[in-house]
Amino acid sequence: MAVYTEVSDDALNAFLDLYDLGDVVSFKGIAEGVENSNFLLRTSRGQFILTLYEKRVNADDLPFFVGLMEHLAERGVTCPQPVRNRAGEALGRLAGRPAAIVTFLDGIWIRRPNVRHCGAVGEALARMHLAGADFPLRRANALSLDGWPPLLHAAEEGADSVAPLLREQTAAELTLLQARWPVGLPGGVIHADLFNDNVFFLGERLSGLIDFYFACNDAFAYDLAVCLNAWCFEPDNSFNVSKGQALISAYERVRRLDGAEVAALPILARGAALRFMLTRLVDWLNVPPGAKVAPKNPLEYRDKLRFHQHVRSAADYGLMR
Amino acid sequence: MAVYTEVSDDALNAFLDLYDLGDVVSFKGIAEGVENSNFLLRTSRGQFILTLYEKRVNADDLPFFVGLMEHLAERGVTCPQPVRNRAGEALGRLAGRPAAIVTFLDGIWIRRPNVRHCGAVGEALARMHLAGADFPLRRANALSLDGWPPLLHAAEEGADSVAPLLREQTAAELTLLQARWPVGLPGGVIHADLFNDNVFFLGERLSGLIDFYFACNDAFAYDLAVCLNAWCFEPDNSFNVSKGQALISAYERVRRLDGAEVAALPILARGAALRFMLTRLVDWLNVPPGAKVAPKNPLEYRDKLRFHQHVRSAADYGLMR
Repeated sequence: MAVYTEVSDDALNAFLDLYDLGDVVSFKGIAEGVENSNFLLRTSRGQFILTLYEKRVNADDLPFFVGLMEHLAERGVTCPQPVRNRAGEALGRLAGRPAAIVTFLDGIWIRRPNVRHCGAVGEALARMHLAGADFPLRRANALSLDGWPPLLHAAEEGADSVAPLLREQTAAELTLLQARWPVGLPGGVIHADLFNDNVFFLGERLSGLIDFYFACNDAFAYDLAVCLNAWCFEPDNSFNVSKGQALISAYERVRRLDGAEVAALPILARGAALRFMLTRLVDWLNVPPGAKVAPKNPLEYRDKLRFHQHVRSAADYGLMR
Repeated sequence: MAVYTEVSDDALNAFLDLYDLGDVVSFKGIAEGVENSNFLLRTSRGQFILTLYEKRVNADDLPFFVGLMEHLAERGVTCPQPVRNRAGEALGRLAGRPAAIVTFLDGIWIRRPNVRHCGAVGEALARMHLAGADFPLRRANALSLDGWPPLLHAAEEGADSVAPLLREQTAAELTLLQARWPVGLPGGVIHADLFNDNVFFLGERLSGLIDFYFACNDAFAYDLAVCLNAWCFEPDNSFNVSKGQALISAYERVRRLDGAEVAALPILARGAALRFMLTRLVDWLNVPPGAKVAPKNPLEYRDKLRFHQHVRSAADYGLMR
């Protein structure tokens, strides 16, 4: 998250005056994530996260995100809970930004997940998919098929400076995905960004999910494909099929994939790898002066994409049928 | 502080196994400061700060810093307390860095200090000077007079790209300070970096001092001169004499300045301004690729230095005699 926006004492106090949270005991910027400014806020009433939504988040989407966290928590998915102020509002403004306070979630994110962590993530993902079924708001996935050509366009000029032939290879992959992208798969609310740093554990018990700011309506199996990319590769970008098996089988114990989803999984995994390669590539080529976050290497996802290109069926990911 | 070093799960657990701190409940990087990597660590036993000392901190100095925090706290100065492991050690190694755990200090740092905050800082500074009197270890001030020529040398080439004539003006100031720098002033352990973000308040009550990683042996009045620079200027770099008066008079209620200190204060304030201008200038000209911390503007201290150059005596800072 890093901290992009300074919050003055007066502004913080005026904002907190709208809430029943008692006196401020501690207020510290958090050095994780990349999209928003996040502060750990401790008051006489407990521990909270205060988020300022920076420009990459569309303010019109905030009711979706905030409503979703409330909806999921009511259905047993442990995630941060928006705190409403005395006027009953979960969203306000602070330091010129939309802002919200959410409850603090215990747990740490796992830097080196093992097979058991992957299983826990698969189960939690499926439970989230079921819990979101009756959520009434909708949000399109801005970073799916239609969102990729503009990203490629933005990165086109610099792509080959990152790796030889990267522009051409990426364009070819995009063309293939446009021809083969599945439609009509079972879908609903997906997390769309369930990376390691968005899943908390206490020991090996999964203690909650955070960061719903890419959540949207899309195919459930695409969310699983994102998790295969995020959780089941080793640091050298080799695929660990035991982790894939643990992730998929735990998912299926809660929500079984249908035949169309199984058939589509390799293409969805390619799409998910391309999506993260493209956003990372754009960020990599556009590091602003004074940037507070080191960009992530896009080539990690180029390598993962290459693996998916050689996958023959979902069995290669560890699916047991 | 930002986070320069990733800590793996296994490494963290192995490190914490040496301590009696119970189970980890939360572990988050903190986005403040610039020198070290700091993490907020919550365990079943309480809240702590885990610090990895990065390369700008000399490992040989760590026993001084850690010992000083223990020494000051025993004498009533509220500051983080090093936590010793089961072997009685306050310093260990984690992720290839020297590392320590200290207690968490409640409070927030003040973005826009008022006159009362300045008074509280003056009093705390004087109490710290008295409390450090019998601290047995010694550490030279590496960023005093002898440390400035190498900094100027490092910044010489790029200085005029930051502001016209900056190189020449800085060299002239250094020459003047070398001729007039006071010797033999009352001294002892000083904080040497008591900026806003190193002083915590709960409401208007000062709740503690942090970040002793520039602490050293030097003239007490130099520490006061650092605070005049850090606390008594407005955002437009104009000097607020009411704040200066509050700072100095509160300091003197605990420890009265002698005649030599009063006479030296304007020169010490110039030296302090030059010290922060030089380190900021070097950082400004050497932002590494992928830097996680935006460099601070050196010209803030050029402007403060200009004010000090026109000061006639300590009375201009608000000293009442």
